[in-house]
This record gives sequence, structure tokens and C-alpha cells, in this order.
Amino acid sequence: MKTYKVVFAPSFKEIQAQEGKTVLEAGRDAGVYIDSHCNAKGTCGKCRVRIVEGNVSPVVEEEHNFINENERSQGFRLACMARIHSDITVLLPGENILKAKAGEKLFSKRSEIMRPAVKAYRVDLSACKENVHRAFFEDVIQYLNKEYNINNFESDLSVLQNLSKALKEGNEKITVFAWMDKEIISVLPEWDESAYGLALDIGTTTVALYLCDLKTGDVLSSGSVTNPQVLFGTDVMSRISFSASHPGTGVRKMQTELINSLNIMINQMLVENNITSDRIIDMTVVGNTVMHHIFLGIPPDELGKWPFIPSIHGSVDFKAREFGLVINPAAYVHVLPVEAGFVGADNVGVLISEEPHEIEEMSLIIDLGTNGEIVLGNKKGPLVSSSCATGPALEGAHIGNGMRATIGSIEKVRIDPATHEVDYAVIGNKGWASEKLNIKNEKSYKIKPVGICGSGIIDAVAHFYKTGIISQDGAFSKEIKSPRLRKRENGEMEFVLVWKDDTGIDRDIVLTQNDVRQIQLAKGALHGGCRVLMENLKVESITRMVIAGAFGLHIDKENALALGLIPWCKPENIIMAGNSAGHGAYLALVNIEKREEADRIAREVKYINLALDKNFQKEFLNALTIPYKTKQNDN
Amino acid sequence: MKTYKVVFAPSFKEIQAQEGKTVLEAGRDAGVYIDSHCNAKGTCGKCRVRIVEGNVSPVVEEEHNFINENERSQGFRLACMARIHSDITVLLPGENILKAKAGEKLFSKRSEIMRPAVKAYRVDLSACKENVHRAFFEDVIQYLNKEYNINNFESDLSVLQNLSKALKEGNEKITVFAWMDKEIISVLPEWDESAYGLALDIGTTTVALYLCDLKTGDVLSSGSVTNPQVLFGTDVMSRISFSASHPGTGVRKMQTELINSLNIMINQMLVENNITSDRIIDMTVVGNTVMHHIFLGIPPDELGKWPFIPSIHGSVDFKAREFGLVINPAAYVHVLPVEAGFVGADNVGVLISEEPHEIEEMSLIIDLGTNGEIVLGNKKGPLVSSSCATGPALEGAHIGNGMRATIGSIEKVRIDPATHEVDYAVIGNKGWASEKLNIKNEKSYKIKPVGICGSGIIDAVAHFYKTGIISQDGAFSKEIKSPRLRKRENGEMEFVLVWKDDTGIDRDIVLTQNDVRQIQLAKGALHGGCRVLMENLKVESITRMVIAGAFGLHIDKENALALGLIPWCKPENIIMAGNSAGHGAYLALVNIEKREEADRIAREVKYINLALDKNFQKEFLNALTIPYKTKQNDN
Repeated sequence: MKTYKVVFAPSFKEIQAQEGKTVLEAGRDAGVYIDSHCNAKGTCGKCRVRIVEGNVSPVVEEEHNFINENERSQGFRLACMARIHSDITVLLPGENILKAKAGEKLFSKRSEIMRPAVKAYRVDLSACKENVHRAFFEDVIQYLNKEYNINNFESDLSVLQNLSKALKEGNEKITVFAWMDKEIISVLPEWDESAYGLALDIGTTTVALYLCDLKTGDVLSSGSVTNPQVLFGTDVMSRISFSASHPGTGVRKMQTELINSLNIMINQMLVENNITSDRIIDMTVVGNTVMHHIFLGIPPDELGKWPFIPSIHGSVDFKAREFGLVINPAAYVHVLPVEAGFVGADNVGVLISEEPHEIEEMSLIIDLGTNGEIVLGNKKGPLVSSSCATGPALEGAHIGNGMRATIGSIEKVRIDPATHEVDYAVIGNKGWASEKLNIKNEKSYKIKPVGICGSGIIDAVAHFYKTGIISQDGAFSKEIKSPRLRKRENGEMEFVLVWKDDTGIDRDIVLTQNDVRQIQLAKGALHGGCRVLMENLKVESITRMVIAGAFGLHIDKENALALGLIPWCKPENIIMAGNSAGHGAYLALVNIEKREEADRIAREVKYINLALDKNFQKEFLNALTIPYKTKQNDN
Repeated sequence: MKTYKVVFAPSFKEIQAQEGKTVLEAGRDAGVYIDSHCNAKGTCGKCRVRIVEGNVSPVVEEEHNFINENERSQGFRLACMARIHSDITVLLPGENILKAKAGEKLFSKRSEIMRPAVKAYRVDLSACKENVHRAFFEDVIQYLNKEYNINNFESDLSVLQNLSKALKEGNEKITVFAWMDKEIISVLPEWDESAYGLALDIGTTTVALYLCDLKTGDVLSSGSVTNPQVLFGTDVMSRISFSASHPGTGVRKMQTELINSLNIMINQMLVENNITSDRIIDMTVVGNTVMHHIFLGIPPDELGKWPFIPSIHGSVDFKAREFGLVINPAAYVHVLPVEAGFVGADNVGVLISEEPHEIEEMSLIIDLGTNGEIVLGNKKGPLVSSSCATGPALEGAHIGNGMRATIGSIEKVRIDPATHEVDYAVIGNKGWASEKLNIKNEKSYKIKPVGICGSGIIDAVAHFYKTGIISQDGAFSKEIKSPRLRKRENGEMEFVLVWKDDTGIDRDIVLTQNDVRQIQLAKGALHGGCRVLMENLKVESITRMVIAGAFGLHIDKENALALGLIPWCKPENIIMAGNSAGHGAYLALVNIEKREEADRIAREVKYINLALDKNFQKEFLNALTIPYKTKQNDN
């Protein structure tokens, strides 16, 4: 029977699959986790994927319940229903929309000050009836001036187009929504101040979106989805190349893919919260400089070569209609400023969220995404920042059995120093694998591991060192005798974390010598970068550290320190902050003072280009080794 | 053989035509002039028409030379090639693009002050190379600040998208185009300050467009085209009804038809002048209040009922991309303010063109379009304005053999008092018909009349009165014996202006008793309106009169006075100003001070609603009669 090549993005894992096999089956064979609750019956809708290249079987009845026409036109299918008929590329959208309750908890402690850019004003023109109307718009302006003492309003064209109808329907009572007290962007034919906004964090690999109530500050829904630009390259450099090699069209393609994905997410959130799209009247955006440029449709080509100049530095406001976003087309999208060629608006988001410039104590802030962005400073002095080319290894990419932190990935590892036996925890299950007598029959531990994500890799490598499986320079031991430590066919050493029978991929899950080297390079870049900033501000040791990024929530501080991923800091003084960049976007959404703060901080922060720094190479090399007794080494 | 109904807009003349006849042949039978130089061979392209309803024969090879794909999709055809296969409606686009030389003469005397909204600045960033770039946009801003002392620029998104490429292509030297010194709307990768703008005058029946060089003020091309909205109603009230009866979609349809027609005209002008669309970076618009609203996509519904409130009064600026105009999408379109429900931005255009508020002497300004808009005032006092429901009779509509002032229409008439013989002049020929011994054989008088336009009608009715053919109350004489004065089948009297053999429509060209009544109603409304304004400012007689509107260029002052169309004024003190509204749009395009003047005047001018004025009814009735000795009556 004929077989075809099936590639799964964003990991770009490949497998040969027989003609007629479902995409879900091929995914399981490739060790790619695709959620399915209904056992491939087409009734749960969890296995939505996007076929971005190649032919699969036609859409069947069952899929209509889960995939609308617009989504179908973009290639969305249920993996359990789509059968392979050619070489195909499949994008796992990684959609993850948190429902209202879960969303509410997000950022809950930090939204006390509400000062959104869009304000609602009640207008009543019924008194004008007896007088002479001049024109509806000027009557509204006069009323706002008299009642609220605001003047010099401009108007979106759509407001003028809707105004007379709104006044008629509302019996002369309308609600006017004004942006920055400068421009009327929406009118409602009743007195109703409800308004909603979106905060967007565009990561290289994952895009996070938050739907917020602009009256209360509540996060009504939050969601994340694979950045579909992974189809054009998994890291920023390859996206820059794609843009440069497709002048004009490249950046537009990547922008369109992103907007399409966002629109699908926005529509889901609208339905979930029973809100119409025109009620979303504000939006803020953060992202690294390349994501920032592509979102704006600006070719990022110059960011890929010395001297790495962005096209624009300051924050900008453009109308939603210029992006084709399915929110109120008159709404402004506020894109936060970037700091420099490689320290973007995402880091600005982190800064206004963590506020190192408001704290007496010196803070080291590390935002771990596909790359690492670091800031050091305090209230008194300058802030210095840098970008470390950690690359996507910490996200599980470029690691043989690596994967992102989704269901089925090994997120924790511990190794018995005596027996070298491995225990692990898998996302989607509760507790450690060893706590279950029999994994196969235990319902609460039904999910078999299919790969290992960043936090699991850090645990594993740290334990490799602690247990002597690797030496300080990262090489696998030649003395330890364990069936898990073995030679591959190509002569490379590898260590088996989970035996084939216990995995969901019908083969062993391993870490190879090369995988360990990848982690060493990433940690060398990050740790070395931190040291350069510390030398720059003459800081000897870190007493306060914030690790931002969703990834940070999962990693084990002790193991990260043991590995030397980060400079030494007492574990109790390391704060795991979660998605601070997204939180910064949220703060800028609900409080315009945070936008001003962002503009100010982005101008003031001093960027250090590690590639040009004379000390970096030395620090990088030093940091490649694995210091177990980190404290003594660093402090 | 089967026959079909063929309707020709904008006159809505109907004829039954045999299946397979060409639209050109049907037009000739209907007395509708369709230009054709090549004698229906499909080689001159002059007979372009638009089939807006019904089926005609498929497009043939010859048409490809004159009609592009976009135009074909809108129904454009060569009338000599399209054969009738069903009931059809044909729109005569009345396209008339003046070539460069003719355009240059237009407004030539009045463009001395050049102060356009968009200014060009030369930027050279090559000096930045040695220093550290922060970001390209900020570098440009810094340069503009240093070299030109301008600051706080914003930017169109497209500029950010093009900036790095322009700097690269221009070797760091670019030209920056800034709107109102506020926003950068375009960049060029070289030092080239050439910039172009459009001035648009949207008439109810005809749309006039001027392409201007923003460096020199020259009008490079001017063009006029039938407002395609005539398909939805020939006058403003019927367009309001169309909007009201099709909520949401009606106004959008009319707007889209207008934009499509404009885009065809713009493209012709671009080709003619060898300019690319992105070099057109500014635009001004005038039009009556209903045209103004429809252009902006604002439903004009409230303008159709008491108290006739417009949606917006002041001037507005919106981006070209919001209208879908094929100019630089980042360009601003400046729409001049309206005065009141029925005195629109076109009249504001007339005011900034004629400047009665700058002249010591009292001026009466009459803008004759489909309706008449009048203003009275001088430098010292207030300006008062009004709108007279003259209706389209003076444009030849609602008159049996009436037509617009295009080729084939009788534009001048004189009647011998003794013999009642008629002499006439036809647009497209030179001189009077009587000056040619034999019209048929004389090459320079080859165009046979097919109808009569406004100026001809005024001449004819004035001569009817002077020669006793009608009495003071407008009734045809029962005493005069002439074969030309006869009774129609329905008993109505009519006067034959041109006998069948000399016409191009195979029947006599006549004016009927009803036609004379239509003219009386129109002149009563206009003259009565003028009297009300004069009473309002206690002005006894007019010593300075300006007649604006293309129509005014053709009418005979003496006959207009004889008819009592206008109040008495010495003929030498009556200025025929041409398209002052369009000229006002042009002035606002090349000089932003005129925009400020327009905003100020529009606020200050006092609008008198004739429907609510207690004197109007009396003045209207008085003005219905035809005063031959106008001087004695009025002065």
C-alpha cells in the first residue's frame, strides 16, 4: 500500500503513513499528542487540526458541528475524520480557550486601577427637540461639552454613518464611546456602558489572547493558540528570511495567517461570552520585535542583519479595520513600544507588569520564551536589558523527543542516584508515574507520555549531573552501568527516560548526548547574558529574581539552579510570574497610565547587544559547564 | 419581430426597439445623442455606455480596446456593438475628460496662493550611518525636527511598512509627504516632490473631477460624468427615498456606484498624465447635503423630513482607503462643511470661490444646478442663504423634448417677432442654423438637433413672451396664426421649434404648454427665493450678481432677465462664473487657508428655510408671471 510523508507543525515531526489512515492515527504514530475524548468518533471536536498542505478525504457530516465555513476554507478538520491521500503538512493549532471561571482568576490581584482608553458617556438629546438642531454630530459634541466638559472630539466615519439611526432607535438617548477623549469610535442606541477589550501577546511559537471587561477589569476568557507563522519558520531568524526572500508578499502572508488564527479565537470568545464583535472596542498588543513588525505588516528584514534596526520604536495606534480583525472596525489597536532590535514590546510588557523601576531592591527579570530576554535594575539606577539566543531548545524543539508543554509531555523527572531508575510526571495525569502501581489500568493515569517538554528536560539534565550520569562538561559517563545508558546506532550516547511499553509512541523516550549539548548551549547563552548585565551594573549577586513566561511556571527552581540555567539566587527569592508580557498587555488595556509608563521605560532602558559585548564570549563559555554546587560557584 | 423596451438614463427616455438592434441605433431613434465618430465600426470608442439592466449580445473583439475588465464587469459596452436581447436600461455616462491643454486653462487665473495640505520634505539619513540608529521612523522624525523644525509627526501604517525599503532603495535619501504637518502619509525612495490632488464636485446629475498638480496649482485634467446615482432617482428626494426604503443597503449601493464611476475617471486621468495612483495624495469634495451624506455613506433619510437635520455639519477628513478610491490609500479626503439641511458643501465651495464676504458691494450669488442655491450678503453684514426647489426643469428634465446641454441639444433660440420663424444653435455646430443655406450638406453643421437644453428653453420662453406667443401668465396665445403653434392630440397647445426633417429624431422638436408651466414653476421658486433674501437684508435692488454652475455659462442674460428667472440687475453687472462649487473644491485643495475660511463661513452663514418663511408664498406667486419689462417691475 502507498505511504505518504506526514509532517506535524509546530514540532515538524515527520512520519510515513499509509494511504487512508486518519491524521489522528498518524499523529499517534509520530508521537504527536492530539487530544480526543470521543475515541475518534467525531463527536467531541477536540482533535481539530489544520491541513496546510496536501490532500485529505472530503469533509464529513460530523465535522460541521465543530468547524465553520470560514475555518474549513482555512483547512481546519477533525483529525479523526480526515484521511491521508497525499504527502501532507498538519498544523496543530494548540487551541486552548479557558472558560469564564478560569479566566477570571487570571491576573485577578493586579487590576485594581481601571482607566481604560475608551470611556462611555451617556448622551440625551431629547432636550434638543424644542430647540433647533444644527446637525446630530454637533449636537452630541455640544452635549458632551456641557455635561462632561470635554471638547474637540473627532469621529470615526462609522459613527457618523450610524448616528441618526442610533438616536432614532434610542429615542434620543445614546451611549457614546470615546477613545482617549479624542475620537468617538462607537455609539449605542441605549444607555449601556458595557465595553470589552483584548490584550494580545504574540509569541514566536504561541499566541495568547485575553478578553477583558473594560468596566470591571475582569478577564472573561483567555486563550492560546500555536502561532501559525511556524509554518514559515520556527524561530524569528527563519521568519526574517522568509520575509526577505519573498519581498512584499512574505510579511503579508505571515500577517494574514496570524490574523486568521486570532479571528478564530476571537469568535470563539465572543460566542462563549455572548458578546457581539462591535462591542470589543479596544486592544493592546505585545510581542518581540519581529512579531511586532509582522503584526504591523512591516517587513522585519533589517532586524536580521547588523545593526539590527527596527522600523519603528515608539508605540503606535492603528484602527482594527487596518488589520482585518473581527472586532469593532473603528477600535484602535495599541501596539506597545519596542526597546531595540532584539528586545521587543513583550519585554516592555514584562517591565510594566513587574515594575523593577519602582522597587528599591535590584531585580533580575528573565522572560523565557523561544528566546530569553533579561532585564536588570532597580528604582535608583538605569535598567539594562539584553536578549539571549537561548533558541527553542528549552521549549522542547531541537530535542529528539522534545515537545511543547501540552498533554502527554513529561514535565517532571527524578532519577534515583543509586539505581538510576527514572520517575516522571506527565501533563494531563496527576502525580508521579511511580505513585501508580499499574499505569495501564489506573484511570487517573491513563495518558502515556509521548515526549518531554522544557521543564522535564531541565529536571532530567540536572539529575543526570547530580547522579553522575553526565560529568561537569556534559558528557555521558563511561563508567555507569545501566541498561538505560546505551549507545545509539550512530555511536552517540543516549539515556532512556521511559521504556517503549510505557510510552504512547511505541518506542523509548530518550535524551541523547546532542540533546544535552543543546541544553548546555541554551543555558550558556542565558546565564552568560545575565552575567554581562550584572557586570554592567556592578552587581555581584542576585537577591531578587523574577522568571516570567508560561514556561517558568513549570520549571523546578532547584534544578534550574543546579543546572546553572540561571545565576545563583536563594530559591525563596525567585518569583515565578507566569505570562508577565501578556499581563503587561492587559495592564495597558485597562489603564492608559501603563501605556505612558511603557513609552517612558522603553525609551530609558539601556540595551546591551551581547554580540558586540567583549565579556559575553568568556561568560558564555564559563556557563557551558554544569555547576552542581552553584552557590559556591556564584556567590 | 420581437421588440423590447429600452430606457436611457439619466433622461429616462424610453423607446421600443426591435430585437438585435444596436443600442446606438435605439438611442438615435429615441432622440438620445450618443457620440460616434467611426460610424458604428467599433473603432473610435466614443459610444461607451453602461448596460445597467437586461441582456445584450456578448462582448466582441473591438470593445477590448476601449473597455477594460473592471469596466466590463460594471456593464460598460460600446453602444454600436451591443445588440438588444431583452428590455434594457442604458446609462449614458456622459464621460468628458478634458485633455491636459484644456485642463490647464481652467481656474488658471485663480490659483496664485499655493498652500496645499500635503507638503514634501527631503530627508537624508546617510549621516546616521556613523551614529547609532534607534529606529528608522524615529530617525526620520529627528531629521525633520532638526532640519525643518517640525515635530510630533504621526504616521500612516503604510509608511511604516514601506520605510526601510524606501531608505534602502533611495540610498538613505527619501522624500516624505506630510499631511497638515501632522502625519506622514507617503514616502518616496528619491528626492522628488511631485504630488497630485483631486478636487471633486458631486452634483445630483453630473460629477465633476479635477486632477491638480500640488506643486504648481495647474489643473492637469478635468472630467465630468453622469452621477450614476440617477439610476436610483433623478433628484435628491428620490435618492433619500431609496435610502429610507432600503435601510443600510440603499446608501451603500449609491455610494458604491459613485465610487466606481469616480475610479474609472481617475484611472483615465492617471493614464493620460502618466501618473501612478499612489502619487495622488490629497482630495477635496463638495456636493449638496444629500450628495455629501451619500459620499460619506451616511443615510440621508433625515434630510427628507422636517426639521431636515444633517448628520454632520462641519468639515471632515477621512482616509481614501475608507472610500475605496484608487488613489494613495493613506491620503486624506477633505469633505467641506455643509451649511444646513438643504444648503450643502457645494454652496460653501461657491462662497470660498466668489468671496462675497470679502467684497464691500452687496452680491447675490445664484448657483444653478439641479436645484438653485442662493446667497446674499457682503463684507459688512451677515450672509443669508437659501435653497430653491427649482427642480431639474432648467436642466431639460421634465420637459418633453428637454435634454442636458450636450452635443445635439438646442442651446440658443431666437424667434422673429413678425413671422414667428425660429432660428437656433446646436451644441457641436458653429453659429446659428440660419447661417447655413443647407444644413444637410454643410459639413460644419452636420449635427442635427435631438432636443433642447436649459439655455435654449430660457431663450425660447423669453422669445415666446417677447413675440406675444405666450401672455404674461404663460398661456399660449389664441390669436397668433402660425403653423408652428398648434394643438396636440390631447388638446394641449404646443409650439414647434424645429420641424421633423431638420431634427435627428424623425419628429418635430416642440415646447408644450406644460413645458412652459414647468419653467414658470422653476423661475417662480428661484426668483421668489431671491426676493425673500433681499427682504431679509432689506436690499431693494441688486447691483452685483454672480451666476454659478456650468449651466450659467450658456444662458443668455437678457433672456433670463426678460423671463424673470432672476431679479433685475444690469446685464453688465451679472458675472457668469462657471463651476464655482468645483472651483471652491479646487481652492481648498491647493490652499488650506480656504479650508479654514470654508469652516468659518459655513458656521456664520444664516440659512433661511423658504418652506417656513411667511413671505415666500407671496413672492413665489408673484414671480410665476413673466415680466418682460423686468427693469421697471423690479427696480
